Amino acid sequence: MIIIMKPNASQEAVNNITTTIESRGLKAHLSVGTQVTIVGVVGDKTLLADTNLELADGVDKIVPVTESYKLVNRKFHPEMSTITVGNTSIGPGNLTIMAGPCAVESQEQLMETAFAVKKAGATFLRGGAYKPRTSPYSFQGLEEEGLRYMKEAREATGLMVVCEVTSMRALEKAVNYVDMIQIGARNMQNFELLKECGKAGLPVLLKRGLAATIEEWLNAAEYIISEGNERIVLCERGIRTYETSTRNTLDLSAVPVIRQKSHLPIIVDPSHATGVWSYVPPLAKAAVAAGADGLMIEVHPCPERALSDGPQSLTFANFEGLTKELKPYASLAGRTFL
Amino acid sequence: MIIIMKPNASQEAVNNITTTIESRGLKAHLSVGTQVTIVGVVGDKTLLADTNLELADGVDKIVPVTESYKLVNRKFHPEMSTITVGNTSIGPGNLTIMAGPCAVESQEQLMETAFAVKKAGATFLRGGAYKPRTSPYSFQGLEEEGLRYMKEAREATGLMVVCEVTSMRALEKAVNYVDMIQIGARNMQNFELLKECGKAGLPVLLKRGLAATIEEWLNAAEYIISEGNERIVLCERGIRTYETSTRNTLDLSAVPVIRQKSHLPIIVDPSHATGVWSYVPPLAKAAVAAGADGLMIEVHPCPERALSDGPQSLTFANFEGLTKELKPYASLAGRTFL
Amino acid sequence: MIIIMKPNASQEAVNNITTTIESRGLKAHLSVGTQVTIVGVVGDKTLLADTNLELADGVDKIVPVTESYKLVNRKFHPEMSTITVGNTSIGPGNLTIMAGPCAVESQEQLMETAFAVKKAGATFLRGGAYKPRTSPYSFQGLEEEGLRYMKEAREATGLMVVCEVTSMRALEKAVNYVDMIQIGARNMQNFELLKECGKAGLPVLLKRGLAATIEEWLNAAEYIISEGNERIVLCERGIRTYETSTRNTLDLSAVPVIRQKSHLPIIVDPSHATGVWSYVPPLAKAAVAAGADGLMIEVHPCPERALSDGPQSLTFANFEGLTKELKPYASLAGRTFL
Amino acid sequence: MIIIMKPNASQEAVNNITTTIESRGLKAHLSVGTQVTIVGVVGDKTLLADTNLELADGVDKIVPVTESYKLVNRKFHPEMSTITVGNTSIGPGNLTIMAGPCAVESQEQLMETAFAVKKAGATFLRGGAYKPRTSPYSFQGLEEEGLRYMKEAREATGLMVVCEVTSMRALEKAVNYVDMIQIGARNMQNFELLKECGKAGLPVLLKRGLAATIEEWLNAAEYIISEGNERIVLCERGIRTYETSTRNTLDLSAVPVIRQKSHLPIIVDPSHATGVWSYVPPLAKAAVAAGADGLMIEVHPCPERALSDGPQSLTFANFEGLTKELKPYASLAGRTFL
Repeated sequence: MIIIMKPNASQEAVNNITTTIESRGLKAHLSVGTQVTIVGVVGDKTLLADTNLELADGVDKIVPVTESYKLVNRKFHPEMSTITVGNTSIGPGNLTIMAGPCAVESQEQLMETAFAVKKAGATFLRGGAYKPRTSPYSFQGLEEEGLRYMKEAREATGLMVVCEVTSMRALEKAVNYVDMIQIGARNMQNFELLKECGKAGLPVLLKRGLAATIEEWLNAAEYIISEGNERIVLCERGIRTYETSTRNTLDLSAVPVIRQKSHLPIIVDPSHATGVWSYVPPLAKAAVAAGADGLMIEVHPCPERALSDGPQSLTFANFEGLTKELKPYASLAGRTFL
Repeated sequence: MIIIMKPNASQEAVNNITTTIESRGLKAHLSVGTQVTIVGVVGDKTLLADTNLELADGVDKIVPVTESYKLVNRKFHPEMSTITVGNTSIGPGNLTIMAGPCAVESQEQLMETAFAVKKAGATFLRGGAYKPRTSPYSFQGLEEEGLRYMKEAREATGLMVVCEVTSMRALEKAVNYVDMIQIGARNMQNFELLKECGKAGLPVLLKRGLAATIEEWLNAAEYIISEGNERIVLCERGIRTYETSTRNTLDLSAVPVIRQKSHLPIIVDPSHATGVWSYVPPLAKAAVAAGADGLMIEVHPCPERALSDGPQSLTFANFEGLTKELKPYASLAGRTFL
Repeated sequence: MIIIMKPNASQEAVNNITTTIESRGLKAHLSVGTQVTIVGVVGDKTLLADTNLELADGVDKIVPVTESYKLVNRKFHPEMSTITVGNTSIGPGNLTIMAGPCAVESQEQLMETAFAVKKAGATFLRGGAYKPRTSPYSFQGLEEEGLRYMKEAREATGLMVVCEVTSMRALEKAVNYVDMIQIGARNMQNFELLKECGKAGLPVLLKRGLAATIEEWLNAAEYIISEGNERIVLCERGIRTYETSTRNTLDLSAVPVIRQKSHLPIIVDPSHATGVWSYVPPLAKAAVAAGADGLMIEVHPCPERALSDGPQSLTFANFEGLTKELKPYASLAGRTFL
Repeated sequence: MIIIMKPNASQEAVNNITTTIESRGLKAHLSVGTQVTIVGVVGDKTLLADTNLELADGVDKIVPVTESYKLVNRKFHPEMSTITVGNTSIGPGNLTIMAGPCAVESQEQLMETAFAVKKAGATFLRGGAYKPRTSPYSFQGLEEEGLRYMKEAREATGLMVVCEVTSMRALEKAVNYVDMIQIGARNMQNFELLKECGKAGLPVLLKRGLAATIEEWLNAAEYIISEGNERIVLCERGIRTYETSTRNTLDLSAVPVIRQKSHLPIIVDPSHATGVWSYVPPLAKAAVAAGADGLMIEVHPCPERALSDGPQSLTFANFEGLTKELKPYASLAGRTFL
């Protein structure tokens, strides 16, 4: 932590700061410049948690030096992590494809989709049983019935299944049916739910919040890992910006940034990011080229009849075409796929 | 709902659309332009919920005509609502001041603050018992112990108390201690929690999400009201933008916009919006001038020692100075205060 | 300037940095922490302009300590500036109202508006002769003819006139006709034009860019002042965000922030910020309450017939109503008006 | 154009609208819904330019049906355009690499870079002679001297040269030295400069504005094309968002969006988008995978000594490594490269 004093800060103000720091058993390093004085703090800064030094007389601003996330930070864990889910693993060397409908609508719809995406190369089936919808009058999901269909599809196809939970009640149900828990964008800072996911033991797919910074996202992952659950996969799904020609703005830079700052795997969801099915294939290829460990893609037997997010869903044929196109990109990225 | 066809859409494509619409018992109005054809849909659009007409051949885009929120919409409820909480009421003609610490830290801290803010003119005590913090290593709140202190402060001072809940578990506890439930920015789209608040019966203070549009915010309120709870107050607390000189960007335009679109009262929180105590008084006055029904302001006996958000907290003296300054602004706005 | 080293930076890497700093005649202060080493640079940092120390081995990041703007910085010029324009002055103690049509459309329209806004209390007439329009097919302004009408209106009413310039060619014309030059949001970083405004000698109204940070805005002002022109007034006009219910998001926090960081006066334009005439009065009052030195407001004899920005223009009657309402707010803010 | 009336709009209000429309020689199509009435306008909407129908009694909102850009719109020009610049062409089937230093600093620096980037596969040399810098105290470019070095490098290597202009004065000089004019992000809505570029006849590289929507960007291109210059190439270079871990947020979705909306080629600049050299290679590959027609990449003989944007510049070795890696991506995209 660095404390930057105002140009006109008195000697007394500077002394006051160093006294506070030293009274907590930390060391203060002074750097007296031509215009301003800077105080570096050496030692465990959590000892200063109940002091708000930016409010002290003569202080201009405080600059943190180290990140607040520790266990997910690559600085302290240089090798990349590989997350195992059942018989599959997500991380370096693999390209993982999760595919399926936005919402589970019926047993037939899900089963049909599961076989189709498996045939095309997916190893995970996605499908929402609890749908967070902007309006209370939109379809809210089949809930436990949907989870049951997911489990049946898993048993029939051997695919791993991943499902979003939106509350502790849903989490308690989901652990009985699915292989991986998904935390959606709207719940990325639902800290109570994150802690419970940390305790539940299942691997977690943590989507980036609608307007979350990468730092906040990694801190959200820290909530999970600090409860003892290290099996976390991050998912970039577009952020909110002023641009309206896509539903969100896919931030593919997040892939190399996360790679540098964290050891956790990262996958990309171009379906929610763009909201337009025809933009999904070019951005799926781009995500693999940028270094993503996998993709999450919405597929529906009949997008025109989908109860949720039809416009961004691929048909079976389009999805199969896409996975064929993805193969050489996976090879170039040194990743096994199919 | 209006369907705009592509310039080159075939007659067959247009027929296909009108057939779908009419098959659901709705009427289709054609408007054949020089460049494009437009199809207006007359009737209850929810009958089209499982059709994604934007995917149909020849369709360029779909334009909704009516808002998805109904019960909070001023179009269908022109008179402004007044929300009663205990012996107070929030709405036209009153200026409601909610004040208190960001987090409840101890009985002494809270009690001392409660008496100070009451003396200065507040009618509500705010204070967080469950704190949603970016990092898991930050102070997370006293939980039920904090709620108990809130109730004690209420009994000692007669102030109404408002407290944030971050989970259903917290909600179940809070209803036994507080007069008003607060849903924070990070949980504005925690739809399960919103529904429970709708059922709990207590009045709800619904903060705007970090990057929520006004339409999403009103839809979040619709989740609460559609469960039968009409006692909702909105709270603007700044939105996320690229600007970094304030913590968030206070969107005061939301006050007249909400006034036009909804009958619900709206208050403003300049403390969280700016993150800097010295910016709070000018923006508090601005909020009243813009037509807000009230303010939520952070006050702490010793901001330099606050465990959360000290930099944005007013001292007792500064808060008292502010409420004195606010009086003539309340008068100009035709609002009773003190 | 502070250089933060990576946790694992070698002693050699640190030595390398200090050697570079000292080779330029500056001093390096080392602060060796438990996790990281920090190097403070003492002396004139411009001597390091051709070194990119963030690229050097072992460096994590660089933190600037002082702002890049100097002459407009309040740290080095604590008293607030008052800008005189003809017989008026903008700054502490005054509330300046600039009003008029978005675009000069005809001599009659402008003259009629000039008399109306003067009667209602404005001391400046605004009006665009060169209009920056998103589409090349929209009305682009009357150019020099428009400037001539501005000058005639000035002579007839005694109002000061302010007019936007969008190119050097326009600037060369405008200096012959107007009292104050306006740089619009789209040209805030048209640095060549800023430099010419610095040389032209007329006072400059510098609007904030559509997505400019406050720091970039003050640096834009620094371009003008560094050419010797100190008569600069800033104008907040809304920034670009994801919210679509207003044209832009008015950032009223900019008023206290600018007050703290700079000695220049700041006025507010609620017309362009909101794009909706009915939102202008509440936000005009809020701007005065927040401490603005003035307002710029669009007024048109017949908004339904305006060639540009009609929806955000006030009628004469509405403008007169607003200025009456503003009087007590000016008094509360300790400002002379009317 | 569609006019949506308010739920309670009177018959008189509707009549008033249709009368206005018909008085201009256009046709009004009524669609009377259960809640609202909609009026479709058939014919040339520019005839309504001086009416602001959104202000008329009973009107809720206006929805445009067709885009304001025409000549760059793919709806009216379905085949993709190929832009020829000297002996090269930018568009389908080719991958064009533009590379060079952010700023021209000296003859040696430029010449050395030109030979290096040519050897690695670039066909264009980029280099700034007029630098738009946030602070007036930063290096502002060599101006005409820099242009002269660009021309010399062109003659020595056979590379095409592209150079940014920031004013008409710079444009007048540049046309004598360069093959392609670049309009930078800060000048994307410097409409006077766009018009002059339209007249100057040289091909134009039009960068997206810092916070420009895709629609505004295409309208900026329309300014150039409407002056008769069809040789325009668009360049995505990142947009401003709240995220701070990259300099801007690269919006790769813009590639498929532009492909759908316009016939103009689009290239991508990952250097300015990210601001960090190590993020450039993954995003360069991603851009090609997403369908970009080319890349603009910053290369410097010694990034640590660069006078501008060193941290985002590749060394010669890194650039050569990148172009080798790009080859198979170009093949997959069906593009000729090297």
